[in-house]
Parts: sequence; C-alpha cells; structure tokens
Amino acid sequence: MVDAIRFGVSMSKDLLRTFDRLIRDMGYKNRSEAIRDLIRARLVQQEWELTDRETVGTITLVYSHDVHELTEILTALQHKYHKQIISTMHIHLDKHNCLEVLVVKGRGSAIKKIADRLLSTRGVKHGRLTTTTTGRRIA
Amino acid sequence: MVDAIRFGVSMSKDLLRTFDRLIRDMGYKNRSEAIRDLIRARLVQQEWELTDRETVGTITLVYSHDVHELTEILTALQHKYHKQIISTMHIHLDKHNCLEVLVVKGRGSAIKKIADRLLSTRGVKHGRLTTTTTGRRIA
Amino acid sequence: MVDAIRFGVSMSKDLLRTFDRLIRDMGYKNRSEAIRDLIRARLVQQEWELTDRETVGTITLVYSHDVHELTEILTALQHKYHKQIISTMHIHLDKHNCLEVLVVKGRGSAIKKIADRLLSTRGVKHGRLTTTTTGRRIA
Amino acid sequence: MVDAIRFGVSMSKDLLRTFDRLIRDMGYKNRSEAIRDLIRARLVQQEWELTDRETVGTITLVYSHDVHELTEILTALQHKYHKQIISTMHIHLDKHNCLEVLVVKGRGSAIKKIADRLLSTRGVKHGRLTTTTTGRRIA
Repeated sequence: MVDAIRFGVSMSKDLLRTFDRLIRDMGYKNRSEAIRDLIRARLVQQEWELTDRETVGTITLVYSHDVHELTEILTALQHKYHKQIISTMHIHLDKHNCLEVLVVKGRGSAIKKIADRLLSTRGVKHGRLTTTTTGRRIA
Repeated sequence: MVDAIRFGVSMSKDLLRTFDRLIRDMGYKNRSEAIRDLIRARLVQQEWELTDRETVGTITLVYSHDVHELTEILTALQHKYHKQIISTMHIHLDKHNCLEVLVVKGRGSAIKKIADRLLSTRGVKHGRLTTTTTGRRIA
Repeated sequence: MVDAIRFGVSMSKDLLRTFDRLIRDMGYKNRSEAIRDLIRARLVQQEWELTDRETVGTITLVYSHDVHELTEILTALQHKYHKQIISTMHIHLDKHNCLEVLVVKGRGSAIKKIADRLLSTRGVKHGRLTTTTTGRRIA
Repeated sequence: MVDAIRFGVSMSKDLLRTFDRLIRDMGYKNRSEAIRDLIRARLVQQEWELTDRETVGTITLVYSHDVHELTEILTALQHKYHKQIISTMHIHLDKHNCLEVLVVKGRGSAIKKIADRLLSTRGVKHGRLTTTTTGRRIA
C-alpha cells in the first residue's frame, strides 16, 4: 500500500479472540484488512446520508416479461434517466421471470428517485436499491 | 482495561484521515474505541444470525389505547411470555398514542416470535424488534 | 374504527395464498390489519427520511458499569439532552452488564446526534437507535 | 392479471390519505400495485430468513484494480463458485476504481458464504449482498 500508516489499537483479550474467530470464518487473511473493511462500510453509509454527494448504487429488479407492455415501460424509463444509468445486465431466471441490474451514478437523492420510479412500475415483483460508492473518497 | 492487548493496524493515509474526521464528528475520543465499537456491532449481528443462542432485544410498540380491548390483549400476551419479557416501560405520547418498550431475553428465534405476535395485534400502529446483546460474549 | 373506508385490492390467487400463509404464521387475525401494518411501517420509514419532522425513537445501550466513571458520563450526557430524552429504563443483565433504553422525542437529525454521542462513549459495548413514530400522522 | 382475486381492505380515512400521498410521490398508478409490492417485499424477506430455500441475490463489489493480483484472486474465486454465479457485469468507475455486480443463485446460506469470501478479499473497498428472489413463489 502506498503511503500506509501503522498505528496501535488496544482491545481486551476476549474481544480480540472473538474477533479473530469471526474474521477467520469470513475468510480474512489479517486483522488490518478486516478493520479497514468495517471502516469503509461505515464511510459508505455516511456518504449516502449526506444526499447531495455524487455516489454509486445498483438497482435490482425482478419482473415477469409476460406483463403487458412492461418491457417497453421499463426501457422508456431507463432512457429518461440515461445520464445516471451507466449500464444494465439482464438475466432470464426462468420462462417468466427476468432479473435486471442497473448501475446508477449521481446524487443520492436523484438515484433514490429513479429507484422509486422503477420499483413502482406495475409488474415489477421485487426491486431494491443497493447503496455503494464511487470509491474515490474511500481509499 | 484489564488484560488489554495492543496490536498494529495499517491503513492508507487517505482512509485514516477520512476515518478520523468521521469519528471526531461522532464524538469518539480515540481510534481504538471507535474500532472496538465497529467490531462489537459486527459481532452482535452474528450473535443474531445464529438464532439458537441466548441474546437480548427490545420490542418497541406504538399504539392507540382507544382501540377496544387492546390494552387487555397486550397485557395477556405479555403475561404469556413472562419468562422472556424482563421489563417494560410505558410512555404517554399524547392523548391517544402510547409507546411501550419491552426488554426481552431468550433465544433469537423465540424473541422473534414474541415480536411477531405483539406487532400483529390489531391497533398496534408500529412496532420494531431491536437486536442487541447480553454483553457476555462481547468484552 | 371511526371513519373507516373500505376499498378493493386485486391480486393473483398465488400471491394471495402465500400472503395468507405468512400472516397466519405471524398471528394476524385478518388481511386488512396486516396490510395496514405494512403501510404504516413504510410511512414511519418516510417520516425518518424527512429529518426535519418531529418524531420518536428509542436508544438501546449495553455497557459494563465496571468501566471507570462511565455511569457519571452517561448521566451527564443524558441531562445535557434532557429536553429530548423523555424517559429511561435500566436492566441489570448480569453482574457486569447493564442495558439502558432511552425514549427520545425531537427532530430526526437531533435524535441521531444524541444517539451518536451516547454510542461513542467509551465502555458502551453496543448501542442502537430504533426509529419509531409519534403515531400522530399514522392513523 | 390471470386468476386475479379482488378483496376488500378497510382503513381509516387519515391513514388512506397519507398512503395515497406517499404512493403518488413514488410514482404508483394505483393502490393495488403499491400494496402488492409491500407484500412481495415482506415475502422476499421471509424467503431469505428460511436459509435452505433456493433464492437469488446480487453481490456488488467496488475495488481498485491497482492492488497487486486482486483481479486474479477475484477471478479464481468466481470460478470456484461458478455453479452459483450466473453472470457478472463490470464498470470502470474511474482510472482506479472498478465496480462489479455478480448475480448469484442458490441456497441462502451458500450465497452468504460466497459474498463473505469475496468481500473479505484484500483490496475490495466495499461490497454488499443484495437479497432478491427467483420470483417463482412471488406471483
């Protein structure tokens, strides 16, 4: 790591032992990486609470393509928000069900609005906005 | 702290600077305490995923005491689960609305069931189960 | 219910069957009550997203009273925010661990700040802010 | 809708008015669709609590491709779990940061394990498992 700093953290023996067991089960190679991840997850949460910042999210939709005109409506909506929607991926789950993942970049409040519009469309069975990050402020 | 251990954590300068700003805003006095809290919150999450362990939660209910027989029904339910419900607190929010907080101790699955029963009672406007911990495994 | 309105909802047979099974397991007596609860939970979520509104929350703290001066610090903090903190309840979980539940009323942003201050105090093992409602806008 | 059933739901005037305002803001065309979505979201939550059922999720990763060997490690991990990982999408967020979305299908517990392994890899800045559904049990 470029420009890495090392500092000391103190903890009771018991807490450290329990933590070591948890991160071993999760697959972490060392404590520093696990602690950095806990810190980054907290920072991403803050990035989304301050809704005026540019950030990144994914919108996951499950829908049945049998619903009349749903595909056209979803396509039209996505074109309306083409500035924020960077890319999409489509999976045919079975004969009827589709899964679509959209990667969205913009201000938190704008991304939330796009998600609301897509999720409220008739025929969309399930949808979720996942908040992640541009990675820029999170080294 | 009895039996404290000190170990080194490495991090990029940028990540550390952002973290320092966050924890100062939150009111933390030092990094160790903030990092211990991130670790403990993760451990409590795990404690609840393994639902057979004894743990502690609070159930928060908002309801209107105007609803016919609601108080009687809630009291009867709470007595049914008296072994798990340790204590309750009642707040008169306004002329109609009450808030009640129950502290519950038991296996995760049992606590979830009690919360379901209380939250599904007619007249309960809002209810939530908050997962916390006995504190024993979290030094 | 005073001033109740009845309206029709349409749903596929399959979705309704799955829903009926879920709410029976949860203890609901009828569909209307279960649907009202889903609606109210969504409204409470919105009440907290608009952070300038007056709302209600509970703050749950687990801490060890062995930590030097912790009790004094928590008491001082609570007095500082006495306008928002309506009431508290204390449980002795075991020889070392205490659980304290605070009921807090105020603007969402102010409540979040109080929770941050309490949770970041050294010796508090776990803490959570639970968002609920005054019940006023949620009939 | 094939095989649609219509049933009555009763609600106080006040609750209905607040609900109507919320769903209009979210973009819903009618109450039935909004209520069906609330029900489906609750069912998906249950689908994931019963971890032995087959379900679908997306794993979102943000990482810097500058980290030594990270791309190779992530590729190897994904091949190890090729039975569950259906498809992936890659976005170049900026000069350093990548976003990768994986669609995963399998038992809830297996999907959680794959997510843990990927998220704990050194260099992955942020990662999240989003729980969605095969759509089959959710008409």
